[in-house]
Amino acid sequence: MEAGRVNRRIRVYDRRSENEQQVTGKLLETSGLDFNGFLKILHRKFAIRSHETFVLVTTDRTVLDFDNFEKLQDDSTLHLLQREDQALALATEESITFKPHYNTLIRSGMYEYYASAGQKPLPYTLAELIDNSISATAKNTGVRMIEIRLMFDESLGKPAVIVLDNGCGMTSKQLNNWAVYKLSKFFRDNGTFGSKQEGYVRPDPVPRSLNSDISYFGAGGKQAAFYIGDSARMITKTVGSPDVHELVISKEDFERKEKNKEDVYSGTIKNRKVGDSSHVTKDDERFLRSLIAEESAKESFTAVIIMGVLPDHIRFLKDNFAVWTRQLAHTFHYYIHGVNGKNMSSSSTNSDHLPNIDIQITLREKPPRCPRVMNLREVENDMQTLYINTAADTFEFKAYSEQNTGTVEGIIRYHPFLYDKETYPEDPDADQVSLDDDNDDNESRVLHQARGKRPIFNCFWNGRLIPYTTVSEFDWCSQSKGAKELAECYNRVSGVLFTDDRFTVSTNKLTFIELELILKNKDTIFTRIVNGQEKKRSAPPSLIKAQRSNIQKEFTQWLKNCHEKLDKQVKFMGHMETITRTDV
Amino acid sequence: MEAGRVNRRIRVYDRRSENEQQVTGKLLETSGLDFNGFLKILHRKFAIRSHETFVLVTTDRTVLDFDNFEKLQDDSTLHLLQREDQALALATEESITFKPHYNTLIRSGMYEYYASAGQKPLPYTLAELIDNSISATAKNTGVRMIEIRLMFDESLGKPAVIVLDNGCGMTSKQLNNWAVYKLSKFFRDNGTFGSKQEGYVRPDPVPRSLNSDISYFGAGGKQAAFYIGDSARMITKTVGSPDVHELVISKEDFERKEKNKEDVYSGTIKNRKVGDSSHVTKDDERFLRSLIAEESAKESFTAVIIMGVLPDHIRFLKDNFAVWTRQLAHTFHYYIHGVNGKNMSSSSTNSDHLPNIDIQITLREKPPRCPRVMNLREVENDMQTLYINTAADTFEFKAYSEQNTGTVEGIIRYHPFLYDKETYPEDPDADQVSLDDDNDDNESRVLHQARGKRPIFNCFWNGRLIPYTTVSEFDWCSQSKGAKELAECYNRVSGVLFTDDRFTVSTNKLTFIELELILKNKDTIFTRIVNGQEKKRSAPPSLIKAQRSNIQKEFTQWLKNCHEKLDKQVKFMGHMETITRTDV
Ligand SMILES: Nc1ncnc2c1ncn2[C@@H]1O[C@H](COP(=O)(O)OP(=O)(O)OP(=O)(O)O)[C@@H](O)[C@H]1O
Ligand SMILES: Nc1ncnc2c1ncn2[C@@H]1O[C@H](COP(=O)(O)OP(=O)(O)OP(=O)(O)O)[C@@H](O)[C@H]1O
Ligand SMILES: [Mg+2]
Ligand SMILES: [Mg+2]
Repeated sequence: MEAGRVNRRIRVYDRRSENEQQVTGKLLETSGLDFNGFLKILHRKFAIRSHETFVLVTTDRTVLDFDNFEKLQDDSTLHLLQREDQALALATEESITFKPHYNTLIRSGMYEYYASAGQKPLPYTLAELIDNSISATAKNTGVRMIEIRLMFDESLGKPAVIVLDNGCGMTSKQLNNWAVYKLSKFFRDNGTFGSKQEGYVRPDPVPRSLNSDISYFGAGGKQAAFYIGDSARMITKTVGSPDVHELVISKEDFERKEKNKEDVYSGTIKNRKVGDSSHVTKDDERFLRSLIAEESAKESFTAVIIMGVLPDHIRFLKDNFAVWTRQLAHTFHYYIHGVNGKNMSSSSTNSDHLPNIDIQITLREKPPRCPRVMNLREVENDMQTLYINTAADTFEFKAYSEQNTGTVEGIIRYHPFLYDKETYPEDPDADQVSLDDDNDDNESRVLHQARGKRPIFNCFWNGRLIPYTTVSEFDWCSQSKGAKELAECYNRVSGVLFTDDRFTVSTNKLTFIELELILKNKDTIFTRIVNGQEKKRSAPPSLIKAQRSNIQKEFTQWLKNCHEKLDKQVKFMGHMETITRTDV
Repeated sequence: MEAGRVNRRIRVYDRRSENEQQVTGKLLETSGLDFNGFLKILHRKFAIRSHETFVLVTTDRTVLDFDNFEKLQDDSTLHLLQREDQALALATEESITFKPHYNTLIRSGMYEYYASAGQKPLPYTLAELIDNSISATAKNTGVRMIEIRLMFDESLGKPAVIVLDNGCGMTSKQLNNWAVYKLSKFFRDNGTFGSKQEGYVRPDPVPRSLNSDISYFGAGGKQAAFYIGDSARMITKTVGSPDVHELVISKEDFERKEKNKEDVYSGTIKNRKVGDSSHVTKDDERFLRSLIAEESAKESFTAVIIMGVLPDHIRFLKDNFAVWTRQLAHTFHYYIHGVNGKNMSSSSTNSDHLPNIDIQITLREKPPRCPRVMNLREVENDMQTLYINTAADTFEFKAYSEQNTGTVEGIIRYHPFLYDKETYPEDPDADQVSLDDDNDDNESRVLHQARGKRPIFNCFWNGRLIPYTTVSEFDWCSQSKGAKELAECYNRVSGVLFTDDRFTVSTNKLTFIELELILKNKDTIFTRIVNGQEKKRSAPPSLIKAQRSNIQKEFTQWLKNCHEKLDKQVKFMGHMETITRTDV
C-alpha cells in the first residue's frame, strides 16, 4: 500500500465519446491515493455517471486495477474508454524520455576498438589518453610531461592505469563537460554561466599538421577508460586555482543508480584543496595517496586513473612491453621527435628544433620485480625511426583536392640497396601484425624484395598516426606505370602522408574515413616540394593532367638519381630469376 | 531582472573558517531574488557579521556579483570564503549531470559506417533496418513481408526512405525502448509497470544459425536512420491493439530542445486509431497519408520513415540500384533462400523448405520515370548464388573452440575446371570494391587463376553476412600445406562460415571482433560433416592433433576426388608456365 503513496502525476485522456473534442488530457495528482481514491477523483474530473461502465487502460491497453495501479510510474498516460477495445477517436500524446543507456559509455570502447586482423587494440586506447594530454599541454611553456604509470604492484592497491600530464587541467565546468559523451569541442560551452559559448578556434596551419589539436569526437577518453577497465577517476587542476577537482564515473555507479531508479547520468565533482587525500579510504586505492601528495609540485595537471583493469589487458601490457611501447613511439613519432623525426646520426641534439614532449612509461610490479621505465623518445626501432634512419634521400610533395580543403603533405624516402642487401627496414611487429600473410612474408624475406607487397604510405592525422589506414601508392609512384629498368627501385621507397583534421577519421582513430578515395580522385593535384618550396604553384583544372605527368616525371627522375647515386651494388634481379627457374 | 526570478536552488558551502566542520552545504531557494536579496538570506543563514569581509565564488572561482548572479543556473554550487584565493579546508561536493550529447544518436552512424577501402556503406545501413524486420517477423505464421520503399518522387513529398514490415510491431513501451540508444535486448524491460523484466531468452540452435535474432546492441536502427537522413519516424502496431503508436526523433528537435534548454531526450509518442492521418499536415510529408491508409490491411506492422535523406545517398541509391540490391541479396541470402541457398537448377520450388521471407525493394521517381521494383529473391548474380550454382561438390564441417562455445558451421564448395575454363565465379562488384588491386585483378583474369588471392570464406552471423570480415583459409585447406599436384584445385574452392552471436561483431555489423583469431587457435577442433552427421565426435584435447590431421586428410581426399571426377579437362599449369617463361 505504501508503494502507491509516492509522488505521481498521471495524464488521463477521456476518449469515451466518439465526438470528443478535447485534444489534451488532464493531469491528475495521485500522490497518496490508492486505486479507489484515484477513481473518486476521476469520477469528479470527468463527470462519470455513477452507473456508467468505463475502463481505464494504459497506452499498451492493459486494464488498470487495484494492483497494477500501484505500480504505475510518474508521468504515465491513461485512456478513459467505454470499452477495452474501443478505438481512439482522437489521438493522444504520451510523454516519454529516452536517455541513452549507460552502455553507451561503458561499452563504447568494447566494440569500437575491435581487434582488426589480429591486432591488439589496447595500445591505441592508451593513445587516446596521450592525445588528450598532448592537447592539454599544447600551451605549456616548459616541458610537456606525459606519464603513463601502470600500477600493477598489488601491494599498493588494486591494479590501475594512470595517465598524468602537466597540461592546462580542467575547471569544474570543463570536467563536467569531459564526462558528456560526444560533446565535442565544436559544441562545448565552458563557462559556468551557460551561454558563454566561446566557439572553437581552429589552430593555424603548421608543418606536418603537428598542431596538438588531437581531439574531435568528445568520446576518446571515455571509450579508452572503459575499454581498459570499469571506472575512471579524473583529478585535475588549472593554473592559479587553489582547488583540485575530482570526478569518478564507474560501471558500478551506473548499475547502482539504475537499480535505485536514480538518474544514471548524475554525479558529483569533489572540490578540494591541493594534496588533500582524506577522502581516499578504500584500501584498494591507497596508491592514490602518494599520487595526490605529488599535486603540489605542479601548477596545473590532469590525472586519469583507470581501475578494474581487465586481467587480459594487464597480461598483455606486462608481456608485450616492447611491442606496445614501440607502437606508441610510432604513433606519436613526430610529436616526440619533431617535424623531421628521430635522426640517430645527428650528433648535436639541435635543441632549438627539438620538441619538448616527454612521454614516459612506468610499469610497476610487485617487488622484487623492478619497475620498468622508458621514455618513448628512447625507442629506436619504431617504424618511423627505422624508415628515417635507413633513408638516403627524400622526395617531398603536397596534394590538393577539390573535394577536401585539408592539408596533405607527403614524404617518400629512398632505402638504397647497399653491399648485397636491401636497407628497406623490416617491421619488427610483422609476425604479430599479420597472422595470415606468413607465406607472403617468408617469400619476401627469402627473395629480399625490400617493401614487397606492403603499402608505401603510413598516414598521420594532426600529426599522430592513424594506424589501420595505409595508402598503397599513387599512380605516379607506382611500379606499374614506371620505367622497367627501375622496377627494383619502386620497391625501395617508404612514405608518410600528413593530413589535418579536415580529413576525418573513425571515432576510434584507427582508420581514415575517405582519405584514399579523395586522394585517388582524378582532380587531386600533386606538386613537388623542394627545400620547403613548391616547385609549381597549384594549377587551374585544365592543367591537372599536365601536373600529374609532371609529378610523375619528377618522381621518376628522383628515383633514377637515387638508384644511380645511392644503390651501391646493382642486383641483377632478372638474372637471379633465371637461376631460380633452371632449378625447377 | 526578470531573468533572475526563475526557480533556482543554490547550494552554498561555508568554508571561511579553517576549522569548518560542516561537510555538506546549505541548499538555498533563490527564486525571485536578485543578488542583494540573496545576500540578505546568506547573512542570515550563515551568521555573517555586518562588517565582515567575505566573497562568494563559483567552483571555478569566479567571484559572484550582481550581474553574473542572474546567470547562475539551477542546482549550482557556491563557496563562501574569506578571500578569493583561500584554500578549501574541507572538500565540497557539486552535483552535475552528464547526459550524453545528442550527437551520440545523430552522428553515431556517420563514423560507424565509414567507407572502408572505397566501399559505400549505405547498403549495410539498410541491412540494419532489414535485420530489425527479420527479427520482428520471426514468429509470423504467414509470409514475412519486408519492404524498402525509396520515395524519390518529389511530387509526393520530400525524399524519404521507408522500411515496412508485417512483424509483431511494438507496444508504446517498446517503442519508447526503441529510442533508447544502446538499450539492448539483454537489458530491456518491456512492461509498462517497471520491474517486469522478462529477461532475454536465447533462441534454440538451428542450422546455419538462421534464428532471426539479428539484433544485439540496441543501436542499429538509430545509427542507420541518422546515417541515411536526419529524422526517423516510427509507426507501429501490435496484434490486437486498436492503437497505432507513432514517434519521431529528429536532429531538428534535438537542436531546438537544446537551444530552449529543454531535456533533449524527452519526446512524445502519439497514440491514435488505425488509418488516422489527421496529424499529417506538412506538404513535405504528404506521402504519409497513403502509407497510413494501408494500415488497416495488416494486423500488426512497423514502418520506419527516414527523411532529410542526404542527396549523395539518393544519387547512390538511384545510380547503383543493381549493385546495392545485389549486396543486400548476398547479405540475406540464406534468410531469403533457406539453408541450402538459391539453387537455380532445381525445377520444383520445393515449397516445404522454402523460407517465407519476402524482401521487396521499390524505387519511385518522378513520373514519367517508372518505379523500379525488385524482390531480392530474384537476384541471380549475388556472390552466394554464383558460388552455389557453379559448385559441383561440397565439403561440410564444424569447428569447436575452447575459447568460445558458439556454433561454427562451414561449407567449402568446389568449382571445377570445365572445358577450358574455370567455373569459380567472378565478383560482379570487384571493380567497385577494390580500388587498389587493379593490377592483381587484371592479372588473375588473364591467368585465370580461379580464386586467385581472394580469401576462401565469407562469414555469416546469425545467418546474415558480416560483409567486411573474410577468412582467407585454414591450414588444413591451404595450398601451402597441400599436395603439389592439387595446387590448382586449392584455387577452385569457395567457402562460407556460419556462426551464432556468441561470436561478437562490431556495432556496425561490418566486421567480426575476433573470429579469425579464435578459429586459428591451435585448440580449435574441426570435424567433417557428412549427410548432416559428424564423422567424428569432438575429441578430448589430447586428440586435437590427430583431429587436425584428420580433417586435413579428409579435405585433401575430397579435393582429389573433386579433381578426378569433376575437372573436365586437365590444365597443365606447369607446362603453361614453361611456355610463358620462354617468352621472356
Ligand atoms: N588530460 C586532459 N587535460 C585537460 N583536459 C582534458 C584532458 N583529457 C580530456 N580533457 C578534456 O575533456 C574533453 C573530452 O575528452 P575525450 O578524450 O573524451 O574527447 P575529445 O578529446 O574531445 O575527443 P576525441 O573523441 O577525439 O578524443 C577534451 O576535449 C578536453 O577538453
Ligand atoms: N521493425 C521492427 N519491428 C518491431 N520492433 C522493432 C523493429 N525495429 C526495431 N525494433 C525494436 O527496437 C529495438 C531497437 O532496435 P535497434 O535496431 O536500434 O537495436 P537492436 O536491433 O536492439 O540492436 P542492433 O544494434 O544490433 O541493431 C529492437 O531490439 C526491437 O526490439
Ligand atoms: Mg580525446
Ligand atoms: Mg537492430
